[in-house]
Amino acid sequence: MIIVTEINELKKLLNNKTAKIGFVPTMGSLHDGHISLIKKARKENDILVASIFVNPTQFLAGEDLSKYPRKDEADKKICEFCDVDYLFMPDITTMYSNDEVLVKAPKLNSFILEGECRPGHFDGVLQIVLKLFNIVNPTNVYFGKKDAQQLSLIRQMVNDFYLDVNIVECEIVREIDGLAYSSRNVYLSKNERTEALKISQAIKLAAKLIGKGELNVDIITKEMQRSLTSEMISIEYIHITNKNFKSIKTVEIGNTIVLVAVKIGTTRLIDNIWI
Amino acid sequence: MIIVTEINELKKLLNNKTAKIGFVPTMGSLHDGHISLIKKARKENDILVASIFVNPTQFLAGEDLSKYPRKDEADKKICEFCDVDYLFMPDITTMYSNDEVLVKAPKLNSFILEGECRPGHFDGVLQIVLKLFNIVNPTNVYFGKKDAQQLSLIRQMVNDFYLDVNIVECEIVREIDGLAYSSRNVYLSKNERTEALKISQAIKLAAKLIGKGELNVDIITKEMQRSLTSEMISIEYIHITNKNFKSIKTVEIGNTIVLVAVKIGTTRLIDNIWI
Repeated sequence: MIIVTEINELKKLLNNKTAKIGFVPTMGSLHDGHISLIKKARKENDILVASIFVNPTQFLAGEDLSKYPRKDEADKKICEFCDVDYLFMPDITTMYSNDEVLVKAPKLNSFILEGECRPGHFDGVLQIVLKLFNIVNPTNVYFGKKDAQQLSLIRQMVNDFYLDVNIVECEIVREIDGLAYSSRNVYLSKNERTEALKISQAIKLAAKLIGKGELNVDIITKEMQRSLTSEMISIEYIHITNKNFKSIKTVEIGNTIVLVAVKIGTTRLIDNIWI
Repeated sequence: MIIVTEINELKKLLNNKTAKIGFVPTMGSLHDGHISLIKKARKENDILVASIFVNPTQFLAGEDLSKYPRKDEADKKICEFCDVDYLFMPDITTMYSNDEVLVKAPKLNSFILEGECRPGHFDGVLQIVLKLFNIVNPTNVYFGKKDAQQLSLIRQMVNDFYLDVNIVECEIVREIDGLAYSSRNVYLSKNERTEALKISQAIKLAAKLIGKGELNVDIITKEMQRSLTSEMISIEYIHITNKNFKSIKTVEIGNTIVLVAVKIGTTRLIDNIWI
């Protein structure tokens, strides 16, 4: 594995017009969720690139940018173990300059849910993703379904800007008790960690209700609300949407996502299930 | 020459990873300025693509979008005569959809000069240029120096977004009496056409003063103002800047652009000279 910090160096290394390049962009602090993306990408491509870059423009003022968990040395070992060819670890001044041309997330789709809770967040996500795509020029890029709205907006950018890249959606990976892997799980105290199980339980409850034939979005949402009620949990949203993030009243099997965002203490966690 | 209206069709036709692709994006109504770009591009590339698309997002409300001069049939003949391989002529619904991911010009550089006179104009320019670049995937793209600030911002986008394309700056082409070619020249009445000569004369005056050793930006600007004074001309700006559009007090030979924007009647004209 070669660790690369400079853009031009990476571009030169990847200047192979016929190889299939797989790419897994991350903010580091790698967990089993990331590892599943990397392993899938390794199988499906000739060259495997991963990146670790904690992207400042997607954090809002007051969010956890400065304390975002980092474990570069462990991450390098994980990537090496997973047979990554090139690990791109640029610093902020490499990726950003002053007064740049900017990317703005679409007005309607980016100001709901995560975009409403974190205004401007998706502008920063799309900006860095566009840059990384243009630097790596990948055939296939791997994203987890956990950041479902992010995935939807990246897909939209690929369509709107005619980017020549295939987006591969990957399943959410969960700990044995159901909690979705997240770099932010390390923030949780022992009690909070226990309480956080309610998130995946609420999502499983939704799946179970739908499995039994309950397709009314309001009823399912209310049941989830009840199951998430706890002194330690502050619900940011429970939302059932179609895969394009348009509102629905009735679950459409095969085209529905059930989403939850909560705060437990100061830690913000999201989870979802695709029905 | 093949005329293409669909994006996927053009992408398929250009799916040759080794050929050198030259690209000349235009808004049609082709004149000798465009022809010089096309001829240069023809010489320097294996495949030559031109596009004609009157981009609505770069026109402000109240500007001349609906009456922007169009002469598609003549333009097709010109492109054929100039040995264009593929002429891309998409319609608006092909290039744009609702609620898109947007490109925003950089804050500082896009809110001066043209950007001050036409707020939002460069957002639209960069949006369409990014799309066209991603569709055509050209080796070399040809732009005239006449739209100097546009050229500078496109260069910046190429840098900021790490686009893999070479921008070729081409000289301004003038009519025999000095007026820079512009699709908007057709708007001018006979009297206005005569008066418009003052624009290139003012620019030549600046060049002459600098040639004589006058490097003081204020003095040159004042002389230009005097020479442009006319009842028929309303000056929008006279500006002397370096090539990155940073303000200067003293002309730097090799790194200076003298810019003029005026209105004659309802017609807006720009011109410049690179010193």
